[in-house]
Amino acid sequence: MHIVVTGGAGFIGARLIQRLLDDHQTIDGHSITRITSLDLAPCPVDDERVESLTGDIADMALIAGALGEDTVAVCHMAAVVSSQAEADFELGMRVNLDATRALLEACRTHPRTLRFLFASSLAVFGPGLSQPVAEAVGPQPRSSYGAQKAIGELLVNDYSRRGFIDGRVCRLPTIVVRPGKPNKAASSFAGAIIREPLAGLEAICPVDANLPLWLSSPRAVVANLIHALTLPAGSLGDWRTLNLPGITVTVTEMLDALERQAGTAARQRVRFEPDAVIEKIVASWPGGLEIQRPLALGFQADNDFDAVVHAYIEEYGRQ
Amino acid sequence: MHIVVTGGAGFIGARLIQRLLDDHQTIDGHSITRITSLDLAPCPVDDERVESLTGDIADMALIAGALGEDTVAVCHMAAVVSSQAEADFELGMRVNLDATRALLEACRTHPRTLRFLFASSLAVFGPGLSQPVAEAVGPQPRSSYGAQKAIGELLVNDYSRRGFIDGRVCRLPTIVVRPGKPNKAASSFAGAIIREPLAGLEAICPVDANLPLWLSSPRAVVANLIHALTLPAGSLGDWRTLNLPGITVTVTEMLDALERQAGTAARQRVRFEPDAVIEKIVASWPGGLEIQRPLALGFQADNDFDAVVHAYIEEYGRQ
Repeated sequence: MHIVVTGGAGFIGARLIQRLLDDHQTIDGHSITRITSLDLAPCPVDDERVESLTGDIADMALIAGALGEDTVAVCHMAAVVSSQAEADFELGMRVNLDATRALLEACRTHPRTLRFLFASSLAVFGPGLSQPVAEAVGPQPRSSYGAQKAIGELLVNDYSRRGFIDGRVCRLPTIVVRPGKPNKAASSFAGAIIREPLAGLEAICPVDANLPLWLSSPRAVVANLIHALTLPAGSLGDWRTLNLPGITVTVTEMLDALERQAGTAARQRVRFEPDAVIEKIVASWPGGLEIQRPLALGFQADNDFDAVVHAYIEEYGRQ
Repeated sequence: MHIVVTGGAGFIGARLIQRLLDDHQTIDGHSITRITSLDLAPCPVDDERVESLTGDIADMALIAGALGEDTVAVCHMAAVVSSQAEADFELGMRVNLDATRALLEACRTHPRTLRFLFASSLAVFGPGLSQPVAEAVGPQPRSSYGAQKAIGELLVNDYSRRGFIDGRVCRLPTIVVRPGKPNKAASSFAGAIIREPLAGLEAICPVDANLPLWLSSPRAVVANLIHALTLPAGSLGDWRTLNLPGITVTVTEMLDALERQAGTAARQRVRFEPDAVIEKIVASWPGGLEIQRPLALGFQADNDFDAVVHAYIEEYGRQ
């Protein structure tokens, strides 16, 4: 059977596609025989089961062309990230809201009740929450990205309640360490302060050293996304939004782990240069969430931040 | 100066317009010299300061024609109500979501930072909450109406945070007793079981007698809406959503008050005929919310349900 992944050219989207194929995942007993990536660029996964459709994901014709009779699921990973959606309001609304709605409408007209995996974010939360944040606590986003994700969550839940789709909403922690270059996420520094020093480069930390962050490795996030996609609907209950597990780590604790894994010289490559715009967005996100229910449902967290750094070095080396 | 009221032909919209004019309310020191009602039908308020524009409130041209150089505020009261938005998904999305967005976009391009009063609803909440529901508890709506209102709340907050508007979101309790005929709100019965027996007519209660409801009289709601509109922005903080005060009353307690105010014969005109669709929607709404902050901000609740029934009889008589 067939799966559509939006944002298949992105880091998480491509890893998701790779893992779905490598692990021979099944959905409701159907094995996955082909995957279509919908993104501005082609999916980098080199596998004959992967087809790339490139273009604007808010384009109804592109979406219609991606869905087939054999489609069983849509994984909606594409997004304009936090700092970019803050800088360009219209672009964020179009990609993060209009495209989500267009995709949901296309799924609604599909003869099968499609599984719909939606990547939301801890950016839906506001500041000043007692932590760990309880499940009932609601979005009070302090960024347009967070607002657009919170709106997407509501749409996926309502479409699910009405039986138009079988939705699963995952609120992703900040994902570290990503390989490659920094992106326009406000949290991009969190990977850079590990990745760049490991490669012998300087990195700038724009937030306070004591700021607690809610983090997950790419490996844990992708495993959790696949778990969310493949879980039977019955185990999710009738509210489809889940806070994915993460670990609470301050910037200082991140740098301690870097030092333990790569030495003092690596740590000394990180400079602190406060950036009020980034600090305001990132400090509005909670540093810890209650995760008893997701853990009981089989979702997983990293053991600790040393393991996250170690796994990055193991997979990507030091550059 | 000028105010736009969407839904000005509706019960609450028309009362809001009447009260704004009668009470000589000012906004930021500006007295109100004219009000434009935007609705499918003309506003019933007979006052030369009121102009009615009729048409589809999602129509950008209609909205553009309503806003003027002297506009200082928009009160967005128009909505497709709960049972109707449940029965006609597209209509609900168009009026409750698309029109809200069109209105916000029009306000964003206005040279002045307009006050934007948005009527939301306790229908944004889901079932199973410990009550009274705390302010931090988030929307988990079990109706498309509730989902669309929760999305509107997020949009108004994000537009306010960005400085596009000066928004104020009021989550309205169930409003009883409305005069006139039942409407397509799932909570319409709550007024009918008082209003109809007072007029000598039978009424049907589709929900359990022990169901607690979160209620407000039309008078208290309109006073609270005007208070929300006229409060200085500084007193609201940076999250603009408020749970308006109400009182917690079960159906039995409502009928007890009816009996005290109008006799046993009136009470006996109410029959219980369970309706699973209505019960499911109404029972998903909380019966009580925490209201310390709104009360401290000067919002008001009715004294008790006897006073609500008494005020209705005083204003509208028994038919």
